Amino acid sequence: MPQISLRAQTVPPSPIRKLVPIAQQAKSRGRKVLHLNIGQPDLPTPPEYWETLRKNQPQVLDYTESGGMPAFKEAYARFYTEIYGIPLEPKHILTTTGGSEALLFAFLTLFNLGDEVVVIEPTYANYIGLGTATGIRLVPVQSYIHEDFALPAPDALEAAITPKTRAILLCNPSNPTGKLYSEAEVRQIGAICRRHGLFLISDESYRDYCYDGERFFSALEIEDSSDFVVVIDTLSKRYSLCGARVGALISRNTEVVEAALKWAQARLAPPTLGQIGGLAVLNLPKSYYDHIRETFQKRRDTLTQGLRTIPGVQVPTVQGAFYLMPQLPVEDTDAFARWLLEEFEQEGYTVMMAPGSGFFTDPSRGKKLARIAYVLDLPHLERAVAILRAALQVYATRRVAVS
Amino acid sequence: MPQISLRAQTVPPSPIRKLVPIAQQAKSRGRKVLHLNIGQPDLPTPPEYWETLRKNQPQVLDYTESGGMPAFKEAYARFYTEIYGIPLEPKHILTTTGGSEALLFAFLTLFNLGDEVVVIEPTYANYIGLGTATGIRLVPVQSYIHEDFALPAPDALEAAITPKTRAILLCNPSNPTGKLYSEAEVRQIGAICRRHGLFLISDESYRDYCYDGERFFSALEIEDSSDFVVVIDTLSKRYSLCGARVGALISRNTEVVEAALKWAQARLAPPTLGQIGGLAVLNLPKSYYDHIRETFQKRRDTLTQGLRTIPGVQVPTVQGAFYLMPQLPVEDTDAFARWLLEEFEQEGYTVMMAPGSGFFTDPSRGKKLARIAYVLDLPHLERAVAILRAALQVYATRRVAVS
Repeated sequence: MPQISLRAQTVPPSPIRKLVPIAQQAKSRGRKVLHLNIGQPDLPTPPEYWETLRKNQPQVLDYTESGGMPAFKEAYARFYTEIYGIPLEPKHILTTTGGSEALLFAFLTLFNLGDEVVVIEPTYANYIGLGTATGIRLVPVQSYIHEDFALPAPDALEAAITPKTRAILLCNPSNPTGKLYSEAEVRQIGAICRRHGLFLISDESYRDYCYDGERFFSALEIEDSSDFVVVIDTLSKRYSLCGARVGALISRNTEVVEAALKWAQARLAPPTLGQIGGLAVLNLPKSYYDHIRETFQKRRDTLTQGLRTIPGVQVPTVQGAFYLMPQLPVEDTDAFARWLLEEFEQEGYTVMMAPGSGFFTDPSRGKKLARIAYVLDLPHLERAVAILRAALQVYATRRVAVS
Repeated sequence: MPQISLRAQTVPPSPIRKLVPIAQQAKSRGRKVLHLNIGQPDLPTPPEYWETLRKNQPQVLDYTESGGMPAFKEAYARFYTEIYGIPLEPKHILTTTGGSEALLFAFLTLFNLGDEVVVIEPTYANYIGLGTATGIRLVPVQSYIHEDFALPAPDALEAAITPKTRAILLCNPSNPTGKLYSEAEVRQIGAICRRHGLFLISDESYRDYCYDGERFFSALEIEDSSDFVVVIDTLSKRYSLCGARVGALISRNTEVVEAALKWAQARLAPPTLGQIGGLAVLNLPKSYYDHIRETFQKRRDTLTQGLRTIPGVQVPTVQGAFYLMPQLPVEDTDAFARWLLEEFEQEGYTVMMAPGSGFFTDPSRGKKLARIAYVLDLPHLERAVAILRAALQVYATRRVAVS
């Protein structure tokens, strides 16, 4: 009997999704589960999306161009130019099946087998799986909760660079930490990339979620960055369109976009309805984005303040995305997250979170951390905090009793 | 300035799509282009698809489970069991973003870097790109037009197997040749795989397109195939749903399906609307499939007979998919296909085809072949034949004049 590949055996399951079967069992026992584990905004998908689909129902749901419908790419370029103030043309954009595929194409286009990419840890879990899939080694540089996950010092980043390094991969604002890197920090990374002849892959999937009046500074805004900056973007978080699976690889280096198109041709085309509807939401006015920001800033405040009242919980101060990554007073958040689903309830509710271990190439570094997505309304977030408070108390007692 | 990867430099552009810009130029000059280049059925998407989407519009277009909506997988298993007579359970199915992604996951799950897979040439062009992306070497065994692209003899297949070989990849019915492999041929390949401890990846995307009353024999029907058979399937061709981007990796080896799920988690989820609508069309009655078969059999007949009346054109007798791969009386079908778009017209029309070179790991083998997709109605196919006849005549004269 033939065996599956070593890479399939070694790739870790998603820390965000591996507890799903246990959550389903909890639900089948009647438990209500507050989902703080997944990066899925809860705000309604804009009605313009559905209206456009209704008005433009094709006779045959056919393939679009491999790089995306021309009209969609035009709308995308206009959106970047007008809403973000970043002048782009359609030739700078390759439409992809979500941000995930934009990352896959970036890895295939920029890296050979055995190449290295520098990432800041905690890092987005799926970068690790993607590295295994494409034969790329992730070289982590640590950021720390006691420094609010600030950018590592330049010499720490430069120490990670070897002759095999081809890029730095930044997630800004960061999934999973919520850290928003400032203009100065982004420029600093850009300067390192230029000095060492590296690409900068900037995953800006959460750029619409920036709080406290901070302006987001895109890697595309670095002067003379056209040769080395590749941005990963998606409609998923911006428009509550995770299920549409539409995103983009963006670069002013048209050689990169054209080479990436060959991978895009090999998978034929991105989803058609996501592009038809996506075209409409890319034309939404600025006020739409203000509403998102205000809603989620309140949630971040509520969650941060709430968690800080729980004894032993350490909460960083961060200003972006919709994640917090607190340190919990437990030995192993994997065991704790599982226990929450299997054993704990308060008024019929429990919470589901993503254990921190999956956001590190060395899982042991994340054993006390957890990623919490604030994708619920304020009353539910308050309830989640109450559940965590009570659960941590019971869990501490329980562990003493057992030992 | 950093350079793109070697693999991105060496991966060939899609033979099916590389002429698209030239076709667009032809159209902008007012030329009408008959698209025989792309595997995109022209029959309308079933109305049940659209009705279901209208009735089930979600508030938030959210992610589904990474391996697909449970209800979708149940419908898929029932469809295989009832329509195809192949008993399957949801645990045998991983929902993917089209057949293309099912292939990607199969390659990642079954092959390590440097492993080899045996393919029959002419082969589906995108297998070649996928091999480059995942670090797998395709080892071709030739099939020949003068044998109607029959399965190579077992000793030719076995001669291609080395210690690095992990699988045979079969496309049945074949894209690009239209060859339908018989039950005996499929069993023969299965026996070779079993003897050598190989996986059999059977791409059955076109299984609904079988003519002359021939019954399709799936690799899943080989007795005791549960450990080594992996089937690639898609809704694209079956339901005119190419743009929905929904397919499946199917295996009774649940270790393969569970390992493949980890790659699926790393890209989050397949498109949601494709699954909601797909659920409905998987419940269509058997008569739906009869209609497809009858419609396309007539087209195959018309095209085969028409092409055979053109001097110098050699047309194989094949019974599946919606492709014919004739040999044309030209030196280089790449140049001829381009010339058709750039220089030729008949009553304002020209045709677009996929040059044969892209369907071989050694492109020179395909220089006289072309893939023609019969995805147009009979009058348009007749017009396409007339255009080809006239074009070949002009092309022959023109070449004499130039030399």
